[in-house]
Amino acid sequence: MTQDDINKSDTQPDLGRRKFLNTAALVGLSGAGLSVGLTACNKESAPTAGAPSAPAAQAGAAAHGKYEVPPGQLDEYYSFSSGGHSGDVRIYGLPSGRQLKSIPVFNMDNLVGWGITNESKAILGTKPDGTPKYTTGDTHHVHQSYADGTYDGKYMFVNDKIHGRLARIRMDTMECDKITEIPNIQGFHGTFTDKRDPVDPSINHTTRVFCGAEFAIPLPNDGRDLDDPSKYKSLFTCVDSNTMEPRWQVLIDGNCDLVASSYDGKLACTNQYNTESGAVHYEDMMANEMDACLFFNVARIEEAVKAGKTSTIGSSKVPVVDGRRDSNKDPKTALTCYVPIPKNPHGVNISPDGKYYACSGKLSPTASVIEHELVLKWFDGDLANARDAVVAEPEIGLGPLHTGFDNRGNAYTTLFLDSQIVKWNVDAAIKSFKGDKDAKPVVDRIDVHYQPGHGFTSMGETREADGRFFNSDNKFSKDRFLPVGPLHAETAQLIDISGDKMLLVHDHSVLSEPHDSIIVRRDIIKTRQIYDMDEFPLAVKDPAESGVFRNGKKVTVKLTSQAPAFSLREFKLKKGDEVTIILTNHDKIEDLTHGFAIPKYDINFIVNPQETKSVTFKADKPGVYWCYCTHFCHALHLEMRSRMIIEA
Amino acid sequence: MTQDDINKSDTQPDLGRRKFLNTAALVGLSGAGLSVGLTACNKESAPTAGAPSAPAAQAGAAAHGKYEVPPGQLDEYYSFSSGGHSGDVRIYGLPSGRQLKSIPVFNMDNLVGWGITNESKAILGTKPDGTPKYTTGDTHHVHQSYADGTYDGKYMFVNDKIHGRLARIRMDTMECDKITEIPNIQGFHGTFTDKRDPVDPSINHTTRVFCGAEFAIPLPNDGRDLDDPSKYKSLFTCVDSNTMEPRWQVLIDGNCDLVASSYDGKLACTNQYNTESGAVHYEDMMANEMDACLFFNVARIEEAVKAGKTSTIGSSKVPVVDGRRDSNKDPKTALTCYVPIPKNPHGVNISPDGKYYACSGKLSPTASVIEHELVLKWFDGDLANARDAVVAEPEIGLGPLHTGFDNRGNAYTTLFLDSQIVKWNVDAAIKSFKGDKDAKPVVDRIDVHYQPGHGFTSMGETREADGRFFNSDNKFSKDRFLPVGPLHAETAQLIDISGDKMLLVHDHSVLSEPHDSIIVRRDIIKTRQIYDMDEFPLAVKDPAESGVFRNGKKVTVKLTSQAPAFSLREFKLKKGDEVTIILTNHDKIEDLTHGFAIPKYDINFIVNPQETKSVTFKADKPGVYWCYCTHFCHALHLEMRSRMIIEA
Repeated sequence: MTQDDINKSDTQPDLGRRKFLNTAALVGLSGAGLSVGLTACNKESAPTAGAPSAPAAQAGAAAHGKYEVPPGQLDEYYSFSSGGHSGDVRIYGLPSGRQLKSIPVFNMDNLVGWGITNESKAILGTKPDGTPKYTTGDTHHVHQSYADGTYDGKYMFVNDKIHGRLARIRMDTMECDKITEIPNIQGFHGTFTDKRDPVDPSINHTTRVFCGAEFAIPLPNDGRDLDDPSKYKSLFTCVDSNTMEPRWQVLIDGNCDLVASSYDGKLACTNQYNTESGAVHYEDMMANEMDACLFFNVARIEEAVKAGKTSTIGSSKVPVVDGRRDSNKDPKTALTCYVPIPKNPHGVNISPDGKYYACSGKLSPTASVIEHELVLKWFDGDLANARDAVVAEPEIGLGPLHTGFDNRGNAYTTLFLDSQIVKWNVDAAIKSFKGDKDAKPVVDRIDVHYQPGHGFTSMGETREADGRFFNSDNKFSKDRFLPVGPLHAETAQLIDISGDKMLLVHDHSVLSEPHDSIIVRRDIIKTRQIYDMDEFPLAVKDPAESGVFRNGKKVTVKLTSQAPAFSLREFKLKKGDEVTIILTNHDKIEDLTHGFAIPKYDINFIVNPQETKSVTFKADKPGVYWCYCTHFCHALHLEMRSRMIIEA
Repeated sequence: MTQDDINKSDTQPDLGRRKFLNTAALVGLSGAGLSVGLTACNKESAPTAGAPSAPAAQAGAAAHGKYEVPPGQLDEYYSFSSGGHSGDVRIYGLPSGRQLKSIPVFNMDNLVGWGITNESKAILGTKPDGTPKYTTGDTHHVHQSYADGTYDGKYMFVNDKIHGRLARIRMDTMECDKITEIPNIQGFHGTFTDKRDPVDPSINHTTRVFCGAEFAIPLPNDGRDLDDPSKYKSLFTCVDSNTMEPRWQVLIDGNCDLVASSYDGKLACTNQYNTESGAVHYEDMMANEMDACLFFNVARIEEAVKAGKTSTIGSSKVPVVDGRRDSNKDPKTALTCYVPIPKNPHGVNISPDGKYYACSGKLSPTASVIEHELVLKWFDGDLANARDAVVAEPEIGLGPLHTGFDNRGNAYTTLFLDSQIVKWNVDAAIKSFKGDKDAKPVVDRIDVHYQPGHGFTSMGETREADGRFFNSDNKFSKDRFLPVGPLHAETAQLIDISGDKMLLVHDHSVLSEPHDSIIVRRDIIKTRQIYDMDEFPLAVKDPAESGVFRNGKKVTVKLTSQAPAFSLREFKLKKGDEVTIILTNHDKIEDLTHGFAIPKYDINFIVNPQETKSVTFKADKPGVYWCYCTHFCHALHLEMRSRMIIEA
C-alpha cells in the first residue's frame, strides 16, 4: 500500500461533528483560540493573589478530605513521571500528590553529585576533558519492566529526546545505572518495554525496550543529503534490557511518535503523525488526511536479523532491517504493517486485556481502536486491508491525545483542545462502528485545567488495571496556583474513576515539564534503604585505611564518614596534584546521608548509608579549604568538616 | 573581655534539668542515641509500603480537610525556601504545601537553560573557556527586602555556602538577576537584609545585606599560614543591596553562623559556635562552655570606613575594619559587642516587636533572650557586662536551634534532639529569669517527625507576624513517606499556632536539603506573567528581522517563536562557525512558554512570553539537527521545529 492508496482509501471515516482541523484554524489557536479558551476559564474561577478566593463550587469535585493522606499514613500508589526537559525522573505519592524524589538521569544534580562523581560520569559518558558528554536531556516516557503482564519492580526505563538516549533505573535503589546513546536517530520520543518473548513462552518478562525516532535525518548524519529531505529517514530501535545495547533497528517510512507493546510479546507499534515522506514543515506534515499506526512483527524481525538480512549505517554496527512499505508488500513475510489512522495521531495505548490499541487522531476528533488479533491476521495474510484492523473510531472530542484504561472496559482520553477528559466505552464504540445506532461510546466528560497532555490510570498499563484513579497532566496551569512569574508550574489533576461519574479529587502542582507517568501499586515496589558496602569496589571498609596515598602527581585520598566526623580531620596536597577522593559512609542508619563539598573546587556529592563515591580534580589553588558535610546528619553537623590543605 | 573572662563569668547560668551535652554523648548520638530515638518513632507509627496503613490517631493532629486548598482555590501564603545543596530556591504554596517553582540560582537548570544561555552565564560568571565558573552551590538562607519593617516585595537574597556567594532574585519575575562572590571568606552560612538605615530616618527600607562567614581561613588564603590555625580568621561582610558590591568587612574573633538584623537598623548580629580561637576539630570547637552572640554597630562601622580606619586583604579592595575583642575594649567606641551565650549556639532570631533576640544553645538546652535596648546601652558604655544584655535563658529542651515568633509574645523553637517544637512565652521567661518561681516559660510542645532544623512562622520575621502557622522543616523523614531508596525526602510539617495548643495540619515532602524559609502573605507579592520585549537589548522585535548574519566565522542567527512555528524553518551554517542564536518569543499569552533544544549540541532553554534569550556554541558537527520546541505550547507543538543544517 502506498501513501496515495491510503489517502484514496474508501475506508476513510466520515466525521460528522467536527471535521479535521485545518492549518489555518490551528495556527489561529496560538492567538485567538487558545486565549479565548483561557479567558473563559479565567472568568469562571478568576482567583487573584491579592484577594482571598471564595470557595468555588467546581463541577465534578469530590468531597474534601476523603482522599487526604493524613500525617503518619502512606500513599497507596507511586507515580513515576518523566521530568521532560528538566532531564530527571520524579516520584510522587498518590493520592497525596507529594513529590518524594527527583532521580537525576540526564540532568546535572548538585544534591546527589550526579555529573560530578566519577561513578555518575562513567554512566553519563564523558568528553576527552573528563566532563560529561551532555548536560541536558529531555525525558519523555517512563516504563517499568514486566513479568506476567504486570510490573515486576526491577527496572524503569526512560528516554532522552534531545540526544537520543535510553536510561535504566534500578528500582531497589531508585538510581540510574545505565545510559545508552542510540546511533543514527534524532528526536527519540516514544519508548516501551516488551512484556514477554514473542517466541519462547518460558520468557514471560521484559527483555527488550522499543525506541521510536521522531525526526527523520540523513543516514548517516555526517553532512550528506543535507538538502534532500526525501532521503531523510527514521529508525525504530530495539535495545536489550539487560545489556542495554541496541539489538537491531528498523528503517521505516514516516516517523515514530509514541510506542506500545502487546501483552503476548508479538507486536510493538508506534503512531506516525508524519507519513508525508520528506515533509519538513509543519503544514506539510499535516497534508495527509490519514497517517498511520505502524506495527512491528518482532519475531520476524529477529529472524531476519539472525538470517543476516541486514545492513549497517555509518560507523554503527547495529544491524538494520528494512521495514519500509515497498519492501514489505507481502503481509506473509512483512516485518511491518502500516494501519491507516486519521490525521496526525498522537498516542497509542493498549488495553489491559491485551485486545485493543487506542490511537488518537490529534487533528481528528477520533480515537481509532485497532484489534490486536486482526493485525496478527494481516501478518498471516488473512486480512485484505490493514485498515480493516480498525474496529472502532468514535468521535470523542477535539485534540485527543493519550488514553488510559480501567478494568471495566472503559477508556479515558485527554482532549488537549477541549481541555477535557472523555470517558468512552470500548465495546460500545465497536458496536457503534458496526452500525448500532443505540450504542453510545462516550460515557462521561470532565473539564480539566488546562490543556491536558498525558493522562494515565492506576496500574492502567498492566493486566492489573484497577480502575481507581486517572491522573491528568495538564500543560497550562494559568490561574490555578499563586502566581510565580512568567514561568508557570503545570497542573496534575487527580480524578476518581471508580464510579460512573468522574470526580475531581484535587489539583497538585508539578514542575515543568512532565510528559508521561505510570501509577504503580505500592506493594510492587521493594526498595533498599541501605547499601551493601561490598557493592563498591573502591570502598574504604575500615576507617584505619584512611589516608593520603601518593604516586607521583597522582594522589588518592581515602576517607570515611561517621557522624559527626570524617575519618581525616585534615589532609595535605601539593599544588598541581591530580587528586582522587574516595569517601565511604560508615553510618548504617536509614536516612543518615552525608554530603561532601569542597569550596572553590566546585565539588559536592552525597554518600548514603554504606555507600562509596569518588571525585577527581586538579589541586590548582593553594590554601586551606574546609570540606564540609552538606547533608544534615547530626547535632554536630556544622562541626563535621575535613581541612584540605594545599601547599603552594 | 577575653574568652577566659567569659568562661569564668559568674553569670553562667545554672542548668538544672539537662546539663550541657558533652562530646562523648554527642558522638554516641550518631549510633545509639539517634537510632533509639527513631526506633521508638518507628514503633509508634510503623507504616510499611506493603500493607495498608491504619489511620493512626496522631496526638495534636488537626481535623482533616479544614486546611485543604480545593481545586480552583489559591493558597494564602507563599513559602520561599532555600534548596540547600540542590542550589536552587523553591516556592511553595501554604497551607497546601505544593511546590510552585524552583528558581535556579547556583545550580545548572536544564529546563530554563540556566548555565546554558549567555544571559544566565553573565550572571553566574564564567571561566576563560566560557563555561560557568561554578556549577554547584549550597543555598542556605532566604530573606526579602523590607520597607517599614515588613516585606516590600522587591527582592529576595540567598547565599551560597560552598563558594561564598550572595544572589539576588527579582520578585516580579522570580528570577535571579545578580550574583556576587564575597572575597576572603569560606563557609558563608547566615545572611540577613537590613530593615532600615541606622542613621538616616528617611531610609526606612533595605539597602544592605549582612553576610556571615563560618569557616576561619588564612587571610588571604593563598598558601600562607597553612599550619597555623591561630592565624585563621572569619569576616563579617556588608553587601550593598542595589549594586550587590561588598561595602565593607569586619575582621572578628571566632566565627559567624546565623545572622539577624534589628528593626531600627542599628545592629546586625551573628551567633558564634566556635569562639575557641584556632579550633579546627569538632571536640575543640565544643571546648568552651560559653560561646557568643556577636553584635555589629552598623553606624560606627560605616563611620570607621568613612574615616579610613580600614585595611584590605590580598587583591580585594573591600575595606576591612577590625572587630576583634582586643581592638574593641572600650564599649563607647567599640564596633562589636560579644554577648556570652551557652555552648555552641545555633540560630539567632529577632522578635517582631524588635525588642528581643532569641539565640539557642544547641548543646545547651536553653534559649537566651537578649534585649536590644540593653545591647545599645552597652555600646553607650552604660551596661557593665555584655552578658547583662541577656534577660532570660529558659530551659526549653534538647538541641534547640531556630526560633519563630507569633504576634502574641510567644516563641516557637525547633528542638533537634527532642524532635519537638516547643512554644514558650518571652515575658514569662523574663520573669522566671528574674526569679519569679510562678512564671512558666514553656507553654506547649508538639512532636515532629523527625529532627527539625529550621522552623518559621507566617510573616514571623516582620512586624506583621500574624501567629497563624509554624512550619517545621525536619531533617529526617524516615518512615513518613513511601520508601524511595537510600536517599529520603525531608518532611515539612505545618502546624496551626493560632490557638493555645499547637495542632499538626499535615506533612508535606520537600526534596533535600532546604535550610531556611520565610512565609509571606500572598498580597505582598506582585508578579509579572509577561515580559516587556524592550527589556532585552538583543530582542528580535519583528519576525522579518530573522535570518543568518555572517561576519567571517562569527555567525548570528536571529529568530522568533510564535506557536506553532519558529520564524526560521531552516538555517544554514558551516562547520567551524562560532554561532550565536538569539530567540525572541512573540507569544503574548500568559503561560505560553516555548523551549529550544538542539540535538547533539547539548543546548536547551526556554523563552517565556515576550522574552529573549541567546546561546553561543561552535558548529563542530556537520549534518541536519532538528531544533525543536521542548515546552508544550500548542496542538502542533510536536511539529514546531527549525532545521539547523551544518555544511561540512
